[in-house]
Amino acid sequence: MLFEGFLSTSAMADLLSDEALIQAMFDFEAALVRGQADLGLIPESSAQSIGSLCRVELYDVRALVAAGGSAGSLAIPLLKRLRENVALFDPVAAGYVHRGATSQDVIDTALVLQTRRALALIEADLLALCQSLLELADQYREQPMLARTMMQPAVVMSWRCKVLQWLQPLLRSAQELRRQADAALRLQLGGAGGTLATLGVHADAVCHQVAAQLRLPLNPGPWHVQRDRWVRLGAELGVLCGSLGKLAADLALLSQAELGELGENPAGGRGGSSAMPHKRNPIGAMIGLAAARRAPQRVAALLACMVQEQERALGSWQAEQAEWSGLLLTCHGSVHAMAEALAGLQLNPARMLENIDRQQDLVFTESLQQLLTQSLGQPVAEQGMAELLAGVRAGQGPLRLLAQQLLSRQPDLAARIAPGAMEALFDVHATARAAEARVNPLLAQARVDLQALRGEE
Amino acid sequence: MLFEGFLSTSAMADLLSDEALIQAMFDFEAALVRGQADLGLIPESSAQSIGSLCRVELYDVRALVAAGGSAGSLAIPLLKRLRENVALFDPVAAGYVHRGATSQDVIDTALVLQTRRALALIEADLLALCQSLLELADQYREQPMLARTMMQPAVVMSWRCKVLQWLQPLLRSAQELRRQADAALRLQLGGAGGTLATLGVHADAVCHQVAAQLRLPLNPGPWHVQRDRWVRLGAELGVLCGSLGKLAADLALLSQAELGELGENPAGGRGGSSAMPHKRNPIGAMIGLAAARRAPQRVAALLACMVQEQERALGSWQAEQAEWSGLLLTCHGSVHAMAEALAGLQLNPARMLENIDRQQDLVFTESLQQLLTQSLGQPVAEQGMAELLAGVRAGQGPLRLLAQQLLSRQPDLAARIAPGAMEALFDVHATARAAEARVNPLLAQARVDLQALRGEE
Amino acid sequence: MLFEGFLSTSAMADLLSDEALIQAMFDFEAALVRGQADLGLIPESSAQSIGSLCRVELYDVRALVAAGGSAGSLAIPLLKRLRENVALFDPVAAGYVHRGATSQDVIDTALVLQTRRALALIEADLLALCQSLLELADQYREQPMLARTMMQPAVVMSWRCKVLQWLQPLLRSAQELRRQADAALRLQLGGAGGTLATLGVHADAVCHQVAAQLRLPLNPGPWHVQRDRWVRLGAELGVLCGSLGKLAADLALLSQAELGELGENPAGGRGGSSAMPHKRNPIGAMIGLAAARRAPQRVAALLACMVQEQERALGSWQAEQAEWSGLLLTCHGSVHAMAEALAGLQLNPARMLENIDRQQDLVFTESLQQLLTQSLGQPVAEQGMAELLAGVRAGQGPLRLLAQQLLSRQPDLAARIAPGAMEALFDVHATARAAEARVNPLLAQARVDLQALRGEE
Amino acid sequence: MLFEGFLSTSAMADLLSDEALIQAMFDFEAALVRGQADLGLIPESSAQSIGSLCRVELYDVRALVAAGGSAGSLAIPLLKRLRENVALFDPVAAGYVHRGATSQDVIDTALVLQTRRALALIEADLLALCQSLLELADQYREQPMLARTMMQPAVVMSWRCKVLQWLQPLLRSAQELRRQADAALRLQLGGAGGTLATLGVHADAVCHQVAAQLRLPLNPGPWHVQRDRWVRLGAELGVLCGSLGKLAADLALLSQAELGELGENPAGGRGGSSAMPHKRNPIGAMIGLAAARRAPQRVAALLACMVQEQERALGSWQAEQAEWSGLLLTCHGSVHAMAEALAGLQLNPARMLENIDRQQDLVFTESLQQLLTQSLGQPVAEQGMAELLAGVRAGQGPLRLLAQQLLSRQPDLAARIAPGAMEALFDVHATARAAEARVNPLLAQARVDLQALRGEE
Repeated sequence: MLFEGFLSTSAMADLLSDEALIQAMFDFEAALVRGQADLGLIPESSAQSIGSLCRVELYDVRALVAAGGSAGSLAIPLLKRLRENVALFDPVAAGYVHRGATSQDVIDTALVLQTRRALALIEADLLALCQSLLELADQYREQPMLARTMMQPAVVMSWRCKVLQWLQPLLRSAQELRRQADAALRLQLGGAGGTLATLGVHADAVCHQVAAQLRLPLNPGPWHVQRDRWVRLGAELGVLCGSLGKLAADLALLSQAELGELGENPAGGRGGSSAMPHKRNPIGAMIGLAAARRAPQRVAALLACMVQEQERALGSWQAEQAEWSGLLLTCHGSVHAMAEALAGLQLNPARMLENIDRQQDLVFTESLQQLLTQSLGQPVAEQGMAELLAGVRAGQGPLRLLAQQLLSRQPDLAARIAPGAMEALFDVHATARAAEARVNPLLAQARVDLQALRGEE
Repeated sequence: MLFEGFLSTSAMADLLSDEALIQAMFDFEAALVRGQADLGLIPESSAQSIGSLCRVELYDVRALVAAGGSAGSLAIPLLKRLRENVALFDPVAAGYVHRGATSQDVIDTALVLQTRRALALIEADLLALCQSLLELADQYREQPMLARTMMQPAVVMSWRCKVLQWLQPLLRSAQELRRQADAALRLQLGGAGGTLATLGVHADAVCHQVAAQLRLPLNPGPWHVQRDRWVRLGAELGVLCGSLGKLAADLALLSQAELGELGENPAGGRGGSSAMPHKRNPIGAMIGLAAARRAPQRVAALLACMVQEQERALGSWQAEQAEWSGLLLTCHGSVHAMAEALAGLQLNPARMLENIDRQQDLVFTESLQQLLTQSLGQPVAEQGMAELLAGVRAGQGPLRLLAQQLLSRQPDLAARIAPGAMEALFDVHATARAAEARVNPLLAQARVDLQALRGEE
Repeated sequence: MLFEGFLSTSAMADLLSDEALIQAMFDFEAALVRGQADLGLIPESSAQSIGSLCRVELYDVRALVAAGGSAGSLAIPLLKRLRENVALFDPVAAGYVHRGATSQDVIDTALVLQTRRALALIEADLLALCQSLLELADQYREQPMLARTMMQPAVVMSWRCKVLQWLQPLLRSAQELRRQADAALRLQLGGAGGTLATLGVHADAVCHQVAAQLRLPLNPGPWHVQRDRWVRLGAELGVLCGSLGKLAADLALLSQAELGELGENPAGGRGGSSAMPHKRNPIGAMIGLAAARRAPQRVAALLACMVQEQERALGSWQAEQAEWSGLLLTCHGSVHAMAEALAGLQLNPARMLENIDRQQDLVFTESLQQLLTQSLGQPVAEQGMAELLAGVRAGQGPLRLLAQQLLSRQPDLAARIAPGAMEALFDVHATARAAEARVNPLLAQARVDLQALRGEE
Repeated sequence: MLFEGFLSTSAMADLLSDEALIQAMFDFEAALVRGQADLGLIPESSAQSIGSLCRVELYDVRALVAAGGSAGSLAIPLLKRLRENVALFDPVAAGYVHRGATSQDVIDTALVLQTRRALALIEADLLALCQSLLELADQYREQPMLARTMMQPAVVMSWRCKVLQWLQPLLRSAQELRRQADAALRLQLGGAGGTLATLGVHADAVCHQVAAQLRLPLNPGPWHVQRDRWVRLGAELGVLCGSLGKLAADLALLSQAELGELGENPAGGRGGSSAMPHKRNPIGAMIGLAAARRAPQRVAALLACMVQEQERALGSWQAEQAEWSGLLLTCHGSVHAMAEALAGLQLNPARMLENIDRQQDLVFTESLQQLLTQSLGQPVAEQGMAELLAGVRAGQGPLRLLAQQLLSRQPDLAARIAPGAMEALFDVHATARAAEARVNPLLAQARVDLQALRGEE
């Protein structure tokens, strides 16, 4: 799984390790008996005996995993070993292990516990990334920059416009992740067929106690085959990877040598090449783009797995779980890489201006056309624009110059255009300032939103 | 696109027709000039002239579509024709057509307007489906039914347990669709590069007016390349198709001749065969399953398209739009088919009981094992269960009988089991009642939730 | 489906129209009775009666489609109408309509017939595209061009190297499409349960005759639920979209204003903007990229649909068909757009050279490092390279100059480097020539392969 | 990655371990210098020095992996450590490490070498599975079985028909995997920009030697961004997972307690439950179905990653590699589980017959309708069938009985039906025999194909 890890982080890989999952399963089993003991349904001593043996370091993880493979469920060998161990010290307690629960209860809840930790990692990097974006917005104000549409120069905007476009979806994902996590990270406890039959009249009370033990919200009934909230959370991870992928794509495009407007921090030799010493590859963008290619397919798999037969699925549930970890891995890889890339991002304001200047004022055609249309009427304006564009393309000079020459040649037209309007229209810095004026209140709001998110952290 | 339509509805196909889309584009253009006229930015007469020509029936739709293909954007020929038509009557007004906007503004907003209507269709069928489920829960109470896990008989539950599992995710999708629609169905208006440069200081006011005209919420800035809310709405359609697919799979499985617990209403010859006169194919389930196979891939495409370059994407935006309609089509096909299937669903309570009875009481092993473990301790219980199962499998009789025989042979064991506990354990109807007792409050809550959704309709 | 059509061609849309599909179904029905009549199994007159009514123009297509929706299969109303029409003229013949076949037989075979035509369209554009690439290779020889890796300048290559990388996968797809089409475009004929029971001992002979009628290869048995060859053909369409997407991405990147090495032909106003008169958007690349985002999901859907239950699938088969047409549409859209773009592609050799020159000779670090390593040993070479790179980055001059200065300062090092080796290394044109020398035989082979494909057309 | 492993095999996991990949990278590096030494391009002693240190056990794998993560490529730290180690013993040799190659060369080739081994594992299980299927065909001859379409009883076929439907696509996949492996498993060697510039005129000779060392076919040029053959191989793994998923779905359906026609071997406690001692879950089917849900998404990811920018992709290449291992894992998990399930498959011929018998002869409507139509004409036949079906559904008896009664009541009709035709039509065993007669030659061919594949093993 080297390539998988390469696009993720070791923090997430550790969190999702076999050991961590098995400990989370034990945490469920311990909470299950603790909850029943607190209600007086099983002896306190049994809960203690069982709880003291619910520690992964007491078990041979490799053997458990191998046995789970042949049994068709990891829970089966794990419970067998646990019962055997408990029986050595406390034969009575062995009979209370896993009482009332089924395999899916322990495995789903364990994955919920792991996902809670995983989302904390993702959120930390996501908020740091948002913070970096706000700082980059603060550092460069009224910095003109090309807006590019369909990968071609379009109009003049400002750097802060770009930052806002990156930032808004990331903040929304941070908010939405919390909301979907609240909905999805629930205790799973339904027993063999979802009826909690063996807990009888105590079923609700047991659910309440176990959920409290694990600090998980109680769910209205088991969700063995109701995967909607879980998949919604996964889809939000996919949406986040998409927004990060857009940011990564922009970084990659703007870092091209011929554009040169941005560069990732090459500190520590990141982005080197095994063959070309001069290379400074945009590694952060690479990881972000890789995640954006992979995450959609993981979400599709989760959605495809929602068709879960009857009261417990055959294959779809197991497939969903296998896809889940991969989604967490790739998502954290992306947000972490983007956070690193943005923390050390190098701007080249001079190149931003130079790239505008090389466009021969063509980035003002939208405004010029509007001015001409309003002043001269549409047919005249259209014809004029066509002539001017032909001139620029024939190398006769920048649009501004040719427009001025056109008006000089036709004073009747010039008279219908407000004095100074033409000059104002071609002002790069004024255009950038105007664009920035529109985004400033939105950036201020983004700052407030980020504060709110950080406050709740 | 015959096969596409076959899995959808004609209502949705009409709503998404070329004509409907082009009218929605005209609605945007009319609102755009109306808003500017209301603010005094353009002459009232111009807004009127333009508005009166913003009607699809005045145009050759086929020609527009063909011209859009070669221009690379449908907006270009549409605006050209509109300007030409306006100029015939009001040359001044022609200059105000599309003022301030860009192609993506009109196309995105048109798709928003269509999606609003499409969601109304989907919601209507979704709420009707939920209503049918509640009625089916009312009609059959305390009806025992097999819970099946991994496609094998597991334990006894009741029909209402099954209904609840189907219903809860559908209600959540109805709620979530509204929420995501509120977030996603926004006016798109940013002008060429997202800066609304040509509207100058009036930009915010124009946005406000145009949004009001179209009864759309105002967005904090353009969302040309911020597709997160749009995709989140699409993902929710995918989640809905997943929950419907689970329902469809259960219908298909329970309708198998050998199970025979459910049947779709074959009224009107639905589900016939071209070769076998006896066939009654579950057509509703077929459409629901087909959608569940297709929708995940549509959502994946939307997510993949989030990587939108710079200020307007090259290819990803256009691909996203092409996938969008397909998702609406397949989602409505599914929810409509499920609503029809559930409205006429035929239950066979006798087969439900018969299928339980044929299991030789094996569906009580969870409870029996718990009783034995608690009464006799785990090692004895485990050995006893193994013997009993071997007996049942060897054809010596149902589990209940063999268990009684076992206790008769071993009075010391029998003495440790509470009187009547064994008989109680094998009571199919009592088990179903107990299971149903747990879901009844949840069904009541579902009824309240549905009422709330209907109230807001 | 406007957006779908926008990314495809009207030729493909017509070919896949409802009318065309229904005619293809009639073609199957006519061939079915013709084959049986030729074998003497049914009266010649019946085959004639039926055949003469197997013409789509005699039917109300909209009504058929609507009836198919409610019946759950298009074949059912189509056969009903056909039987009714036949019965008007020849009651005996009505009893022979569809004899021996099932719905899936006629629908699968009709889709096979349509796909055969669709592949002809795709192949024609694909071969034209390959031809254009070869012509572009001929027009520009020994033209230096940057090789870019990870979106950064890497080394010097030649234009013909680029063409070859685009061309080879396209030729392989042309070959593979033929091979997979031979395997997949087979008669479907199995009867109700795949056993051809009602044709009895004549089953093989009938299959043979019907296949011959339709000029389709005979399959070893029905393939109702054996979708592997069909999906393999679909996957190949996806692979082709991927290779075209790579070409489109390169076009888009090289057409960026700041690179300016390539440009699509803007003839006919293609690529204009509704807001910015100066815009020349790369429309061909847009369509190619859009297809590359969509096709993978279509292929995933086909693969997901391979899980077809028992002897005829419930949902998966119908979903597969709905996805199939979309794949043909998007694939032809892509190959047609690329063929158009390449047919009118504009090269800017001057910009290619300029972009190399602006790299300050850094694109020769691979060669320089090798020269230094071999001449001076690895530690000295590594340190020297580090110094030189630092100098270039500090703006002290291009690599070539700094390298010469380094050697001038250290005559002992200079003495260990072959005379002239350093100068030779930095020769842009010689480097391009050397790179081109390696690809020339491969281009010659590509030409031969294309000839072979054209010969077989 | 516990859940990933759970759905795969330990053999494949070991083969794809970090250690195994790094050793494969070293194998490339050793072959690279060995090839150059054999051509006299570098000293023999250097090749020996380097080769002797190309052993993974000499390195700290965890440290390499971690360093690769921060460098953006595993090749960078690996080559650094290798050069350092070589330099300790042979400073001159250190300068020849990796000469002429680039990171992608070593990583792609290493993955090719691993994939070659992985395909051998997959093929071994695939051929064993085919062998089991043929044996199951041999064991049960002329065994009647229901053909089920759209999950409803259709007609009578035989067990061998079922086996053939499973077998044919698997044999084709075995053949196609070999073919695509021949095309895809090629040496990657292109140097920094794909031009092999630093190897100069010796480039072709070096490629030839290195390929021979690694027993890999030589490719016509590097395939850094030509991923078509590689993805085609991946797609074939997806097709195989699809065909296995169809087999798994059938197993799961036929193993349902209510059908009971098949059962997986529960030896060794496979398929047990943590809560219900009686459970025998179809674990093999579970793994096969899980793979069929996941593999399509992996193939989609590979296809999406084909859009590789310029001469080396940013993100797409890395994402492709990460998806590749997962595809191999899930594919081997599926084929291995299916091979195990089929090797121990338990048939229940009595249930097969019983399930037919319970259908009240309705599975003969296709034949009966044809007989009536041919004998009595279509209108009479249609009406008769409708009456008979209504009778069966009203519980008046099986179709056979009602048909006989109908004819008894209407001797004029009876006279038009060939004597004995009616009885023959309802003969379950004769119908099964006739169906089987058609598949027997195809099974014989399958046996020959399998022999051929085994001969080439």
